[in-house]
Amino acid sequence: MDGCITSKNNPLIRRYRRVLEDKRFRSTEQVFAAEGLRLVCEALQEGRCAALYVTESAYEKYADVLCGGIKPVIISDALGNHLSETEHPQGVFALCSAARMELGRDRLRPNGRYLVLYALQDPGNMGMILRTADAFGIDAVLVYRCCDVYSPKVVRATMGAIFRLPVLEAPAADLLCPALEAQGIRSYAAVLHRDARPVTACDLGEGCAVWIGNEGSGLPEDAVAACKEKVIIPMRGNAESLNAAMAAGILMWEMMK
Amino acid sequence: MDGCITSKNNPLIRRYRRVLEDKRFRSTEQVFAAEGLRLVCEALQEGRCAALYVTESAYEKYADVLCGGIKPVIISDALGNHLSETEHPQGVFALCSAARMELGRDRLRPNGRYLVLYALQDPGNMGMILRTADAFGIDAVLVYRCCDVYSPKVVRATMGAIFRLPVLEAPAADLLCPALEAQGIRSYAAVLHRDARPVTACDLGEGCAVWIGNEGSGLPEDAVAACKEKVIIPMRGNAESLNAAMAAGILMWEMMK
Repeated sequence: MDGCITSKNNPLIRRYRRVLEDKRFRSTEQVFAAEGLRLVCEALQEGRCAALYVTESAYEKYADVLCGGIKPVIISDALGNHLSETEHPQGVFALCSAARMELGRDRLRPNGRYLVLYALQDPGNMGMILRTADAFGIDAVLVYRCCDVYSPKVVRATMGAIFRLPVLEAPAADLLCPALEAQGIRSYAAVLHRDARPVTACDLGEGCAVWIGNEGSGLPEDAVAACKEKVIIPMRGNAESLNAAMAAGILMWEMMK
Repeated sequence: MDGCITSKNNPLIRRYRRVLEDKRFRSTEQVFAAEGLRLVCEALQEGRCAALYVTESAYEKYADVLCGGIKPVIISDALGNHLSETEHPQGVFALCSAARMELGRDRLRPNGRYLVLYALQDPGNMGMILRTADAFGIDAVLVYRCCDVYSPKVVRATMGAIFRLPVLEAPAADLLCPALEAQGIRSYAAVLHRDARPVTACDLGEGCAVWIGNEGSGLPEDAVAACKEKVIIPMRGNAESLNAAMAAGILMWEMMK
């Protein structure tokens, strides 16, 4: 095809790979990579697609779906394999604008529902939590010292939620708790303490924020102390605890019911 | 150390690697591999440890914890890296008896709670579901054409639940549904159909089995038809669906509440 890019050294190709691999570059450039027809179509729909890469084969198949404001860069099928993170690439890639936002007072509604992720590190968990938060209509997810929400693994696991759900960079507990309280939002620390209230006895409706800690160590003591309430998911079996994403999911379900 | 194994070609070392890598071998030999102090200690406690491998360094640190019925095979630290599936191995490994069980009538209690996994394929999802099922006291998980529950990824993600929770090989829906019904157990197919009942309006207590389908395609039509009831988790947001493990977790939470 005329104008088809075939070289790994083409600046557009190198830029995509760098966005995939380099967290700092993603952050300074405010962009992230999305692969696959579904994710790329969502990026186009939400007006978040900054650059579109399509292999020759994929262009033949999907030209109708991909037509829109963004003119696709056509690349060889071999380069599609070079850009892809999957075994059977669909040949459709996008660089998307990251909309990285800091928490500000105007972002919080007194009757909103929020999830605070405190030092969560596993990209699979992060992706699953964002997908679930979107499904349950959580108003925003606030992240403090977590893994990068724009890493390829997280983006893939969100199944498109990354384009819809506000994810806000939050300060540490000593600032975040008062900021939430000032808007009338109650903070619940999810813990395994014996004196925590069972989730079934908590009023996790409007105007609340549930805090989830790190996979290995949970919430740090200062964060637990800063929250007004402690919540626990009662368990019957012998497992010590739930996976962090599962705990977050069940608590969000209880928030939205 | 005296008698320390240093060769990759030692039959014991080759056996462990083969159990790690070869699903058929695991199945015919009825064993699986577990790595790390926590999992191995659970295997010892539950009487499921068939062979114990400890590196020289790990033996110095953990000899007290690991003493018991099984005499450890001491291996070099280099071999520990060879056996390990993690970046920073603790140097503790076990071959465990697999207790692979088929579903039989004596396995089902009329007031039990069951989860049916139908063609679930992702090991991360499987591990998370088994961990959650154990935490919520599900009586048994019935699997039909799923990924191997004894693969290293699943075993690791169960965090020890694999040693406690009964996992039973089940037949296809046309046999499984009547077998459950004969014990008075109602089957609920988890689906995204509009005519499914919201989980909050279902009586998911004792004597029920919730069915979860494949990550990509859900439950096949014949399985949905065989179940007496259809259940859906209502969603507020824009996501098409929840991840299969998350959906299973929320339904199990509703079963045990």
